[in-house]
Amino acid sequence: MGLGEGTHNWERYRERVESTGDGLPAIAWIGHHPAACMGALTRVPIDVDEYSVIGGALAEPLRLAPSETWGEKFLVPADAEIVIEGIIPPKERGRHGLRADYARYYSPETLRPVMEVQAITHRRDAIYHDIHLGGRDQDHLGGIPLEGSLYRAVKQAVPTVKNVHLPSSGCSRFHAYVQIKKTAAGQGREAIVAALGVDRRVKHVVVVDEDINIFDDAEVLWAVATRSRWDRDLVVIPNMITTTRDPTAYAGSPGDLSYHAYTVAKGGIDATMPAPPEPFEIRIKVPDEVMSKIQLRDYVGNDLVSKIPLDA
Amino acid sequence: MGLGEGTHNWERYRERVESTGDGLPAIAWIGHHPAACMGALTRVPIDVDEYSVIGGALAEPLRLAPSETWGEKFLVPADAEIVIEGIIPPKERGRHGLRADYARYYSPETLRPVMEVQAITHRRDAIYHDIHLGGRDQDHLGGIPLEGSLYRAVKQAVPTVKNVHLPSSGCSRFHAYVQIKKTAAGQGREAIVAALGVDRRVKHVVVVDEDINIFDDAEVLWAVATRSRWDRDLVVIPNMITTTRDPTAYAGSPGDLSYHAYTVAKGGIDATMPAPPEPFEIRIKVPDEVMSKIQLRDYVGNDLVSKIPLDA
Amino acid sequence: MGLGEGTHNWERYRERVESTGDGLPAIAWIGHHPAACMGALTRVPIDVDEYSVIGGALAEPLRLAPSETWGEKFLVPADAEIVIEGIIPPKERGRHGLRADYARYYSPETLRPVMEVQAITHRRDAIYHDIHLGGRDQDHLGGIPLEGSLYRAVKQAVPTVKNVHLPSSGCSRFHAYVQIKKTAAGQGREAIVAALGVDRRVKHVVVVDEDINIFDDAEVLWAVATRSRWDRDLVVIPNMITTTRDPTAYAGSPGDLSYHAYTVAKGGIDATMPAPPEPFEIRIKVPDEVMSKIQLRDYVGNDLVSKIPLDA
Amino acid sequence: MGLGEGTHNWERYRERVESTGDGLPAIAWIGHHPAACMGALTRVPIDVDEYSVIGGALAEPLRLAPSETWGEKFLVPADAEIVIEGIIPPKERGRHGLRADYARYYSPETLRPVMEVQAITHRRDAIYHDIHLGGRDQDHLGGIPLEGSLYRAVKQAVPTVKNVHLPSSGCSRFHAYVQIKKTAAGQGREAIVAALGVDRRVKHVVVVDEDINIFDDAEVLWAVATRSRWDRDLVVIPNMITTTRDPTAYAGSPGDLSYHAYTVAKGGIDATMPAPPEPFEIRIKVPDEVMSKIQLRDYVGNDLVSKIPLDA
Amino acid sequence: MGLGEGTHNWERYRERVESTGDGLPAIAWIGHHPAACMGALTRVPIDVDEYSVIGGALAEPLRLAPSETWGEKFLVPADAEIVIEGIIPPKERGRHGLRADYARYYSPETLRPVMEVQAITHRRDAIYHDIHLGGRDQDHLGGIPLEGSLYRAVKQAVPTVKNVHLPSSGCSRFHAYVQIKKTAAGQGREAIVAALGVDRRVKHVVVVDEDINIFDDAEVLWAVATRSRWDRDLVVIPNMITTTRDPTAYAGSPGDLSYHAYTVAKGGIDATMPAPPEPFEIRIKVPDEVMSKIQLRDYVGNDLVSKIPLDA
Amino acid sequence: MGLGEGTHNWERYRERVESTGDGLPAIAWIGHHPAACMGALTRVPIDVDEYSVIGGALAEPLRLAPSETWGEKFLVPADAEIVIEGIIPPKERGRHGLRADYARYYSPETLRPVMEVQAITHRRDAIYHDIHLGGRDQDHLGGIPLEGSLYRAVKQAVPTVKNVHLPSSGCSRFHAYVQIKKTAAGQGREAIVAALGVDRRVKHVVVVDEDINIFDDAEVLWAVATRSRWDRDLVVIPNMITTTRDPTAYAGSPGDLSYHAYTVAKGGIDATMPAPPEPFEIRIKVPDEVMSKIQLRDYVGNDLVSKIPLDA
Repeated sequence: MGLGEGTHNWERYRERVESTGDGLPAIAWIGHHPAACMGALTRVPIDVDEYSVIGGALAEPLRLAPSETWGEKFLVPADAEIVIEGIIPPKERGRHGLRADYARYYSPETLRPVMEVQAITHRRDAIYHDIHLGGRDQDHLGGIPLEGSLYRAVKQAVPTVKNVHLPSSGCSRFHAYVQIKKTAAGQGREAIVAALGVDRRVKHVVVVDEDINIFDDAEVLWAVATRSRWDRDLVVIPNMITTTRDPTAYAGSPGDLSYHAYTVAKGGIDATMPAPPEPFEIRIKVPDEVMSKIQLRDYVGNDLVSKIPLDA
Repeated sequence: MGLGEGTHNWERYRERVESTGDGLPAIAWIGHHPAACMGALTRVPIDVDEYSVIGGALAEPLRLAPSETWGEKFLVPADAEIVIEGIIPPKERGRHGLRADYARYYSPETLRPVMEVQAITHRRDAIYHDIHLGGRDQDHLGGIPLEGSLYRAVKQAVPTVKNVHLPSSGCSRFHAYVQIKKTAAGQGREAIVAALGVDRRVKHVVVVDEDINIFDDAEVLWAVATRSRWDRDLVVIPNMITTTRDPTAYAGSPGDLSYHAYTVAKGGIDATMPAPPEPFEIRIKVPDEVMSKIQLRDYVGNDLVSKIPLDA
Repeated sequence: MGLGEGTHNWERYRERVESTGDGLPAIAWIGHHPAACMGALTRVPIDVDEYSVIGGALAEPLRLAPSETWGEKFLVPADAEIVIEGIIPPKERGRHGLRADYARYYSPETLRPVMEVQAITHRRDAIYHDIHLGGRDQDHLGGIPLEGSLYRAVKQAVPTVKNVHLPSSGCSRFHAYVQIKKTAAGQGREAIVAALGVDRRVKHVVVVDEDINIFDDAEVLWAVATRSRWDRDLVVIPNMITTTRDPTAYAGSPGDLSYHAYTVAKGGIDATMPAPPEPFEIRIKVPDEVMSKIQLRDYVGNDLVSKIPLDA
Repeated sequence: MGLGEGTHNWERYRERVESTGDGLPAIAWIGHHPAACMGALTRVPIDVDEYSVIGGALAEPLRLAPSETWGEKFLVPADAEIVIEGIIPPKERGRHGLRADYARYYSPETLRPVMEVQAITHRRDAIYHDIHLGGRDQDHLGGIPLEGSLYRAVKQAVPTVKNVHLPSSGCSRFHAYVQIKKTAAGQGREAIVAALGVDRRVKHVVVVDEDINIFDDAEVLWAVATRSRWDRDLVVIPNMITTTRDPTAYAGSPGDLSYHAYTVAKGGIDATMPAPPEPFEIRIKVPDEVMSKIQLRDYVGNDLVSKIPLDA
Repeated sequence: MGLGEGTHNWERYRERVESTGDGLPAIAWIGHHPAACMGALTRVPIDVDEYSVIGGALAEPLRLAPSETWGEKFLVPADAEIVIEGIIPPKERGRHGLRADYARYYSPETLRPVMEVQAITHRRDAIYHDIHLGGRDQDHLGGIPLEGSLYRAVKQAVPTVKNVHLPSSGCSRFHAYVQIKKTAAGQGREAIVAALGVDRRVKHVVVVDEDINIFDDAEVLWAVATRSRWDRDLVVIPNMITTTRDPTAYAGSPGDLSYHAYTVAKGGIDATMPAPPEPFEIRIKVPDEVMSKIQLRDYVGNDLVSKIPLDA
Repeated sequence: MGLGEGTHNWERYRERVESTGDGLPAIAWIGHHPAACMGALTRVPIDVDEYSVIGGALAEPLRLAPSETWGEKFLVPADAEIVIEGIIPPKERGRHGLRADYARYYSPETLRPVMEVQAITHRRDAIYHDIHLGGRDQDHLGGIPLEGSLYRAVKQAVPTVKNVHLPSSGCSRFHAYVQIKKTAAGQGREAIVAALGVDRRVKHVVVVDEDINIFDDAEVLWAVATRSRWDRDLVVIPNMITTTRDPTAYAGSPGDLSYHAYTVAKGGIDATMPAPPEPFEIRIKVPDEVMSKIQLRDYVGNDLVSKIPLDA
């Protein structure tokens, strides 16, 4: 069983176990209450109890049970559908084959640590919970915890940040949309720099004003069209660290199949208007009282009304 | 009656009339067969007969009638709902007020030539045909003729171009999506340069591969996320000519209310994969025979099937 | 009495009080235990009790007393040398004259809110504690809390950060030296971006390896000389927010004497060696056993030994 | 017999013939009326009858005769000095050796398709018409059709273009001089972008005003000296497609001897003055009536007059 | 009488005289042996005797005579056609009107010091020697001394420099052509930097190999076409000091009519081939023994031979 | 015995001897009067008598004696501690091993010419004079002659240069500090360009005003902090020639152990204030009469006064 990069504190665990020479006891569990799964995606420092974090997401303590292999010394989630127990031996590596991932490409084969399975337990009629790798549920699950970190980082640099979003069009990792209430020149740039420092997977940041709906790609693109000038509003920083999942990344050591740092150029577009009191053109808005007076049935027959798609 | 920038050969006509000192006879017509309206949007050289072009769009000759003011010397569309006839005096200017336009902002007031109306004729119960300025019908109507020019220009530079699109997210003018079958390095860049030379309103060009649906912003954004590196794949050219409608443009002469050239930085993103035989990661595709075996009703009750939105 | 930019939550307080129209009760205290002064320099969110933070720095609760003006409703530090109580009226502004500040220039005059003094209390033989504005004690006092924020921000981006320093040569604000144990390509760049997002006053960041003493300007400069190549290792980001204290900054609105955002270009130099296993030249080190064998008195007379300055 | 890149629709023909597997019947003809040779250099779409284009250049239909090999099924020019008939077999390649070409370098050897000659016919005392490869006649012959395309492309972007020229100093391909009557800011930049999109061989574009003689390198260089500022008036676009003839080009696949795309940086210099009404210094011009009054013979003896070269 | 910028040590003299408050005795002389005029154009430090320098150019001592005004205390050239003697009063300024200069534009009016004329002496039938301002004799006279400085500066940076030239196409000041025998990578760049530091009037530098004739613009342009890639071989340095004669320069203080520093972007193109042993394509050369065998009279009638212009 | 790059005219001598095929007679001398050693470090053209230059540094002629090997035909310094005489054979190369050098790294092994030793002579009890390679005495010895060249070059470009320094923090070669009295815009940039053209080892130039002490890194860094904006005041020129001692340099031919040109990016920071009359903030200076009134003993007990370090 190959272990992916996503095992969040893996590198820290690996250093520990490789320095002792003993294998690392580990479990994998599959299927649980959705809140438990979400909680497990949170990236925490290695000394934080992940079971407590999952309990926080569940809003009640995670029920635990002794493991088959190590008993009370290693507790496992009692309500998981399936639990796999095993040992990760130091230094041993196995091929982690071509596989689908969130960037929607088949990732190239890598050499990864392996787990020697000791026991598998499961509930009766256990559900094998899986997600569509490279599909939108993988986007959303991965993006939600990252949006939290992103919001906190931008908030520190631009206190008037309103919202952040990692759109599915960027696999909920590569593009970040940041919405701010702009009160001073330079805040768009500050938000870009703050957002690029959050996580190696955030590659492009677009900052917009508070009238732009950041959950709609088309609105963000319209802000880019009419509020950015690329000789002035574009930031490009080459050679930043990225994920192995970015197919345009440079490998740290080309041809090496083990886990290394990858680098890529990152960038941002400041698509905000100038801060007041600098002038800018006013966005068109048909007043609500005008819109409410226009009734489609005044113009076309009743039978057609329901068939005409209305444009937002 | 103020005359907009959109009167396509206006500048050429203006030069002629201002050099003679006589007023320029002109007509405006409102409402006709939709194909006639589309045909009238085509930009043609000044020596091409616009009535013939409209006839081409109608697939039959445009029916004409003598004008009220000049008789046989100036024919007008016989089937127009309303025809306004008048004289545009040289050098006179009037205020062309704050108004909605395709960029979805209220354009600032400008000084424009005026027309002294001589006669208005109309059909019985004439329909005053208007479009929602700053709404999607204005986008589409303006974008269609421009897409033709764009396709021809890119075709000359990159013969394997597949399609072009001016998405509504860029008001069908500012963003251009270009889809090519890439056969050689450098074609993405060539397509950007060719597209930026087509029309002053095209501001940003994104070039993608033939597997990307250019009618879906999210697919184009995904290509930008996973196939572009901005230290290498970005073109920015400052000081190009743009339209007065771009609110980020520099005026030729700030504060001048007359018609002048405006400049802005334009740019492009090459979001194509390397041309074969250079390797790139393979896009995930669940084989059709696998997809066809998965029936939602095998997993949930029949009553739920119709209520679950299916994600593409 | 004019109030400076440094009153950390001032902008938030100002918004509150200007929206109500009432004056803002406020106190200024001068002179206390040095730990209390340091604690007061910590920038905290507006809803954190600053007296508790000062108590934390003192390692015991700050002793408080009723104010002369508002009694128990507004407590003041009981052990301050001098306490000035007053009201800050909304919207009123006074000239805040040419004065020395940490950048070591006389700041230009600005218009600032004023305080109407209600009462001044002081200890017997009160010491008026002041710092040498524009001298090194101002550097150090301001830099210490900022170094903490800087360390935390870089730690998140580059977990192997070793140390940070805001050298006096940059007024303990403008230059930041960051020392990392480099384990992967791109970490120098990550550290720069993280550090530039921390505080508007950090203008230039230099990242060095762990063998470089970041408390010695000359060692950092040597790393810049022999480990950086500016076509590759330099980051420049224009139009970021800075402090009014930077004499090269652009004012948000030139000529405006009130408080506004200022912008400037910020930058960083990555002066780290490539991460292993990439090769680099080895730094010269005379082995300790060799150095210990060389005794100056073996070469010159004893009377000269103490007069020869030894070069590190 | 090796076939060069210059066979204009060759790539399209090659695709056809390689997909069928049959050899491609082909002829080469050498020597004809100069207008026929010029006509044959015109690049036309594959579905245009090239014999008609040649007829256009000749101003009368090209006289044709049945070929020796295929009779009426493949007509050949009746008045050519020499006609070579043959078959180009699919996939076979032969060495196309070191040879002189228009860039004035010996091109490196490449692998090219070959022709199996079936028949050679010629007029009595046939003239073997050749051009000096790498000399000025090759420059001019290749440049004339390209100037036409260039003019059309720039005309579309800048309607006030006056003239274009491909100077012999750039082998009539690499440098393009564009002369415009400038009426608005940004037109120089527009002309550069339009000209760079025309043909892969155009590498550097210089845009000048209408007072500059674009057939004189020295005048164009004077405009560059006194009307361009390279922080503002220079465009550089890396990674555009170029010809294999540019010795600075990057090969698509280095070391590959077959035909591939090559890329290079292209650029332009806008050496135009600001458009009116922006001011600029006035060019010196000695009035004609002054010049006409100065007679050299008034100053020197008659015998010297004819020996003094007069400087323009 | 207005005094131009070209009075070489003028600024130093001006400082002296303005600090004392006395007027500066000065002479202007017009017409002499050409070598004396050339010698007078040499720029020397203020403490070098200019009469000796002129003597050096004449290859014999300059004959001197007492001045009319100051007698033996101020000697004047005895063989000058005309000598004007006067006093330049401190601080007084007069309008130095629109006039032709070497950049071939009418320079805008400036405020310049004036001279109060005391005496004018002249030879019998004195020749008023003038040059065609803005014509080629002004180019050459000004360029020759500058070429010497340029050669020395480049020689120090690139010892294998072969020649330098300031072509008339750049008014013998703005463009510098530098010919080197390239023996190592980077020498083209070194030559550019060295040449840009020589004189404020050198604006653009082109470096070529020793096979390029730098006295022929077309050869230099051919090297730019086929040996430079502008993403790699172009240097642009903004904000360098230039002459008031460059019409694209920024004035130090816009609108100020007195003498100030002007700045402009300067640049260079490295149009050299890679240094051996790096490969590059070989330039075409028809062997001399082949050329000598081709006799035009073997191909055309004798009467035509003399009428056919031969292309170099 | 391997011969280093530092033998200043070595390359010129090598060319001569390799063209004749004979070995090159040569001597190395170790230990002399310090002024003789300094004089020997001066880089002079090959046709200047180096013994005279050393005599200049000594302020008296260098005493010479016949060599052991060649007698009167090759004189050697009579007062040198040790003289090694030998022949450098053409084309022979030996390994010049890993060794300490001024950049403070162990330089990689190279192939260098060798000397076949013929004779060694020495004074009685000769002192083997050596310097600490990579230590500060090597810095200073190498830097002093270079500072002279630097001053002369900058003086030519900016006559108001005040001083130059090659700080030990840049190994007295890589960083150059230039102090100017700024009288016009652009002079900082001019000084950078002039300084970068002086010597291949000068990599980074910082230009400061005359109030900055260029012998104190911290003052120079303060000027960078508060007087430079890197979007405007930074110069970066890639691909300039550098020394093999710069560990970040690109080798001309990677992997080649012989002596070749190396290239690197060089740069400069203009940290000067705007030239008068442009305004800038005034540097803080406590007036001397105020400082003199403050006596530490008025504030603390006499016994403490000597223990408190005073901050400059």
